[in-house]
Amino acid sequence: MKKVVVVGGGTGTFTVLSGLKKYPLELSAVVAMSDNGGSTGILRDELGVLPPGDVRQCLVALSRSDQLMRTLMNYRFSNGTLKGHSFGNLLLSALERITGSFDLAVEKASEILLLEGKVLPATLDKIHLIAHLANGKTVRGEAKIEKTNLLSINRLSLKPSPKANPKAITALTNANLIIFAPGDLYTSIIPTLLVPGIPQAITQSKAKKVYVCNLMNKLGHTDGFSVEDHVLKLEEYLGGEIHNVIVNNQKPSPLLLKKYAREGEHFVEFKKSASSPRNYITHALIRKKVFASVPGDAIRRTFIRHDPERLARLIFKRFILPKLY
Amino acid sequence: MKKVVVVGGGTGTFTVLSGLKKYPLELSAVVAMSDNGGSTGILRDELGVLPPGDVRQCLVALSRSDQLMRTLMNYRFSNGTLKGHSFGNLLLSALERITGSFDLAVEKASEILLLEGKVLPATLDKIHLIAHLANGKTVRGEAKIEKTNLLSINRLSLKPSPKANPKAITALTNANLIIFAPGDLYTSIIPTLLVPGIPQAITQSKAKKVYVCNLMNKLGHTDGFSVEDHVLKLEEYLGGEIHNVIVNNQKPSPLLLKKYAREGEHFVEFKKSASSPRNYITHALIRKKVFASVPGDAIRRTFIRHDPERLARLIFKRFILPKLY
Repeated sequence: MKKVVVVGGGTGTFTVLSGLKKYPLELSAVVAMSDNGGSTGILRDELGVLPPGDVRQCLVALSRSDQLMRTLMNYRFSNGTLKGHSFGNLLLSALERITGSFDLAVEKASEILLLEGKVLPATLDKIHLIAHLANGKTVRGEAKIEKTNLLSINRLSLKPSPKANPKAITALTNANLIIFAPGDLYTSIIPTLLVPGIPQAITQSKAKKVYVCNLMNKLGHTDGFSVEDHVLKLEEYLGGEIHNVIVNNQKPSPLLLKKYAREGEHFVEFKKSASSPRNYITHALIRKKVFASVPGDAIRRTFIRHDPERLARLIFKRFILPKLY
Repeated sequence: MKKVVVVGGGTGTFTVLSGLKKYPLELSAVVAMSDNGGSTGILRDELGVLPPGDVRQCLVALSRSDQLMRTLMNYRFSNGTLKGHSFGNLLLSALERITGSFDLAVEKASEILLLEGKVLPATLDKIHLIAHLANGKTVRGEAKIEKTNLLSINRLSLKPSPKANPKAITALTNANLIIFAPGDLYTSIIPTLLVPGIPQAITQSKAKKVYVCNLMNKLGHTDGFSVEDHVLKLEEYLGGEIHNVIVNNQKPSPLLLKKYAREGEHFVEFKKSASSPRNYITHALIRKKVFASVPGDAIRRTFIRHDPERLARLIFKRFILPKLY
């Protein structure tokens, strides 16, 4: 079976993984470990654990358990002192406290959730994301950076500089296909590339590299970014080229676009340049069903999303099938 | 296979169940639902759920899962806002909130924990234990009653008067053996008997009834109670006779007895009366290993306990084997 590694964290990674899970692939997710917001942030602060949130989402995406079990993992308590905590986060944190190792916690959770694939934290060190702004100021912590205007950002870094998870390095090295999931560029995708060793493993891997570009710009982070701008920013942090880019060419409904525009967020435009050496794959990829936000969840959820089935079918058809036949 | 039902809740029930689990029996636990202390009390107050604590202990006792999974269920968070909550309690409460039914929550948890047997709440109604004292005063809630002097108690009741869980009634009706587990008389064993329909199902059942008598008196509740006093009190609330009583005849170590005496708690004495119609089965039943209390657990744990293996062997030999051969 072909080995596919998805790089990221957050909802976009969930979408890619849950779509690809249905195909005969050896799937892994290499997950950013710099989240410090919401339930995850409280658990980091109070229990001294590693951030469980993004790992949990990937575990649920790859789980073969029934719907109730997956609902349970994403369930957020909505009252009292437990308010906002996701059950799956509590599971990972309790397992980490018992075993003394986040790695073992993820392993046990994978067993409980009958995992189809592997979830690999990019690092097992305790880190925070730092944004270095052009004015010389720094912003510490992903949750704060999330809300900071990064249009004049110099660079991002991790503090302290972490060791890469050797299992993540091995998965990337041996991969046939590496997919950069859609997601917030500065707080979901790039943080993984800040772990020393990870970008090197990716660029040196013989795997094809594919980027699934975001559907919408993020206010204060990627305002006015075209598809090409997204790829260039990613390549800057990767230190290498991303040849294949999957681009959605289906406009969301005007109503939804208006709703986003009110929040200052706009559709990512794609202008095909004849001179570009890149392999742009355009396709209608927007999910029809609009999601309600998770009850009790403090974090605002976007409503324009990739369709997991269509995205997975496209990836399989374009990057796996031609290698098989 | 012979059908055995254990009535109770708390540590003594855990002991009986985990010992009997290793024998070829169809095991059920009928569990008191009036707990409102500790983690359980907070969850009742904040989430409006049914009390998960005693049910969780029975689930762990009957689980065929590995040690890590059982440790996870009993794990208590020791820091921050989660402090004191047992993970298994959170599991049951989250499942109850998702499914809208404690019954379904217990069913799903049983599946997750690979249960060897059934855990049946005595009722699925929200109730509180009430102690009516001789001076006319009433004390509401098991947690408060736990710390109240009950030496001049008139009676206990449940408020509001609940409906029995039909599955518990069926299990008791069809049982071959009904065991009253050791445990706090007024807050673990009798509360089950206060659910209308439960004592009737027990007395009308053709099952043999066995009481495993407590090892130690409880200060303010059963001071100076002999074995016979325990049985008489139980019979008063059952409204029927308990013919078989398992009595430990092994003195705990003087050091431990001294430790308990300092807290006002003493060994339950057994004086065999020649005129008693009861079948008293005496045996050395004290567990050698002394337990440390669970970290982060606010509730004080006793250290003189029944040995689950020896107790189960005795029960099997005396009440199951003679029926089989």
